Amino acid sequence: MATVNHQFRLASRPQGMVGREHFDYVEEALSELGDGQVLVKIMYVSLDPAMRGWVSEGRSYVPPVQIGEVMRAGTVGVVVESKGEKLLPGDHVSGWLGVQEYAVCNENEVFKVDTEIVQLPTYLGALGMPGVTAYFGLLEVGAAKEGETVVVSGAAGAVGSVVGQIAKLKGCRVVGIAGGPEKCKWILDELGFDAAIDYKSEDVNVALREHCPEGVDVYFDNVGGEILDAVLARLALKARVAICGAISQYNNLEAVRGPSNYMSLLVNRARMEGFVVVDYMGRAPEAVGEMAGWIAEGKLVAREDVVEGFESFPEALQKLFAGENVGKLVLKVSADD
Amino acid sequence: MATVNHQFRLASRPQGMVGREHFDYVEEALSELGDGQVLVKIMYVSLDPAMRGWVSEGRSYVPPVQIGEVMRAGTVGVVVESKGEKLLPGDHVSGWLGVQEYAVCNENEVFKVDTEIVQLPTYLGALGMPGVTAYFGLLEVGAAKEGETVVVSGAAGAVGSVVGQIAKLKGCRVVGIAGGPEKCKWILDELGFDAAIDYKSEDVNVALREHCPEGVDVYFDNVGGEILDAVLARLALKARVAICGAISQYNNLEAVRGPSNYMSLLVNRARMEGFVVVDYMGRAPEAVGEMAGWIAEGKLVAREDVVEGFESFPEALQKLFAGENVGKLVLKVSADD
Repeated sequence: MATVNHQFRLASRPQGMVGREHFDYVEEALSELGDGQVLVKIMYVSLDPAMRGWVSEGRSYVPPVQIGEVMRAGTVGVVVESKGEKLLPGDHVSGWLGVQEYAVCNENEVFKVDTEIVQLPTYLGALGMPGVTAYFGLLEVGAAKEGETVVVSGAAGAVGSVVGQIAKLKGCRVVGIAGGPEKCKWILDELGFDAAIDYKSEDVNVALREHCPEGVDVYFDNVGGEILDAVLARLALKARVAICGAISQYNNLEAVRGPSNYMSLLVNRARMEGFVVVDYMGRAPEAVGEMAGWIAEGKLVAREDVVEGFESFPEALQKLFAGENVGKLVLKVSADD
Repeated sequence: MATVNHQFRLASRPQGMVGREHFDYVEEALSELGDGQVLVKIMYVSLDPAMRGWVSEGRSYVPPVQIGEVMRAGTVGVVVESKGEKLLPGDHVSGWLGVQEYAVCNENEVFKVDTEIVQLPTYLGALGMPGVTAYFGLLEVGAAKEGETVVVSGAAGAVGSVVGQIAKLKGCRVVGIAGGPEKCKWILDELGFDAAIDYKSEDVNVALREHCPEGVDVYFDNVGGEILDAVLARLALKARVAICGAISQYNNLEAVRGPSNYMSLLVNRARMEGFVVVDYMGRAPEAVGEMAGWIAEGKLVAREDVVEGFESFPEALQKLFAGENVGKLVLKVSADD
C-alpha cells in the first residue's frame, strides 16, 4: 500500500497571476484509516477558474483556502482501502479531495460514479460541477426557451461548451465566443453551434450584430470585461444575463472593469443575475441524469483536455487562465489501476 | 382666448451638460381646434432626469426628441376650450404635452385628474410618473418584502422619496442616500426613513456598513456611479438591484462608469434588473389608487419643488442635474385660473 503522499499547499496569496511561487509542493506520510474512512488514490484533479478566487482573501461564496492548507480542488479517483460500510476498493469516486495524490476521508465525503458508459474525467466536466453549472445557469438563471438566441462566452471551455450544446438541444439559436480558430472550428463542427465569434481576430461588436440580428435573449457570461460590454449592447427586450464568471478579470492587478453598458439593462428591461453552482447541488442528480442520457445517445459531446503529471499543477492552472484548453481542463495524477 | 403660444424646441443635441444653448425659445400662433380636440393651458411642466436621455440620439426605450420638435415633457393643466365630448373647460388634466404654454390635442391624449384632495402638481410627482416608477420598481422589480433592508439613492428626489416611504409602509427598514444635510434631515424627520447617508460629507461604504449590518436586500438605484458600486459591495444574499436611472452619468463626457463590483451579484446570487415605467402604465391606476389613499390618510408625503417662470426651463433642468431639488421638481408655467 501507498504510504507517502504529495500535495500542493497554498504558500501565499497571489497579486495578479497565480503561479508556482504561491504553492508549496510537500510530501507527507499517509495517516491510518479510522472507522468509516477510505483511502482514495486521486486520478484526475479538476482545474477551474474559480480556483483563482479561492486563493484570494476576502468574502466570497466559499471561505478562502488558508495559507498552509492543501489547495482545494474537485477530484476523481479510486478507493484503494476502505474501512467504510458502502465503498469498496476498486470503486470510482468523486469529491473535493484537493490537489494531492491520495486522500484519507470519510466515505460520505465522496460519491461513487459509474464508469461503464462515461469516462472518469467526465465527472469533473460535463457530469461534474461545470456541467451542473451550465445546466442550471442556462435553464434556470438564463431561463432559455426554444427559439431564443443564446450567446455564451468561454464557449470552448468546460462550462461554455456544455451551455451551447444544451441550448441547441432545447431549440435555441446558439452563438459562441471563443479565442482562436481551433476552438471556433470545434464548437461549430463538433458541437453544432450556429455561429462562432473569434474574439482574438474579430470585432465582437460587429460579429454580434451579424449573428444576432434580433438581439441576444440569453447571455451566459464566463469572461466579463469587454466581451460582457459588447453583448450588453446587443440585448433584446427582456433579456437575461447569467453571470457565471469573469475569467478575464481574475488575475487583474487593477480594479475589475465594470460593464459600462449596464444601462442597457434598463433600456431593454433586462436582468443580470449571478449564481453559484453550490446552490444547485441538491438538484445535481436531475442535471447529471439528463446529461448522462444525452452523452449515451451521442447528443452531448464531453471533452477533456488532459495535462499529464501531478507536479505540473501550477503550470496547468496558468494554461487555464491563458485560455489554452479546449474542453474541460484536468490534471492527470495517476493512471487507472 | 389665448392666441399665442411659447415653446422650447430642441435646437441641438448636447454633449455633456444640457443647457439653454440646446433649445430654441419660440413663439407661435395657436391652431384652431378640430373635432374631439381641446386647448389645454399648461400650468406645470415636469422636469425629469429622463429628459437628458430623450435629447440624445440613439436607441432607447422611447424615440429621441427630434431637432426642431417641442421638448417632450409631462404636464398638468386646465382645459380652456373644448370640442371634445368628455372634457369641459375648467377640467384639470395631465398628459405628455411638452414644454410649452398651451397645447392643442385630442381629448384622449390627456386624462382628467381630481384636485379635490391632491394638489395639481402632485400628479407630476407622487401620483404621476415618478410615483408609479417608485411603486412598481420597489414592489415588483425590487420585490421588497416586510422586514427587509431597502436602500434608495436619490432619496430626496421625486422617485426616491416615494420609494422610501412605500418601503416603510410595507414594513421594511429604509436607508436613504442623498446629498447634503437639508435632504437628509427631510427624509429622516418628515418621511420617516430609518437612516440617511449624506454622500457629500460621508464615506458611503462606511455608512452602509453601519446602517445595513446584515446587508442590503433591495437597492433602488437612481444614480449609478460610485454609489452603485458601494451598495453592490454590501448586498445580502439573493438581493435585488432595481436600476431606475443613473443621473450621475447622464451628462458625462467620458464613457459611463460601469459598476466594478458587479461580481457581487455572483457571490450573493443577486440580480440587477432594469425597468422602464411605461411598461407599467396599464397598471398605473393600481399604484395611483393606493398612493392617493395614503396621501389622503397623511401616510405619504408628496412634496414638489416649484421653479417659477416658463422661460427659465433650461436652468430649472440644470438644477435637477445639480441635485438642488428636494422632492419633485416642476416648472410653474401659469397660475390656476
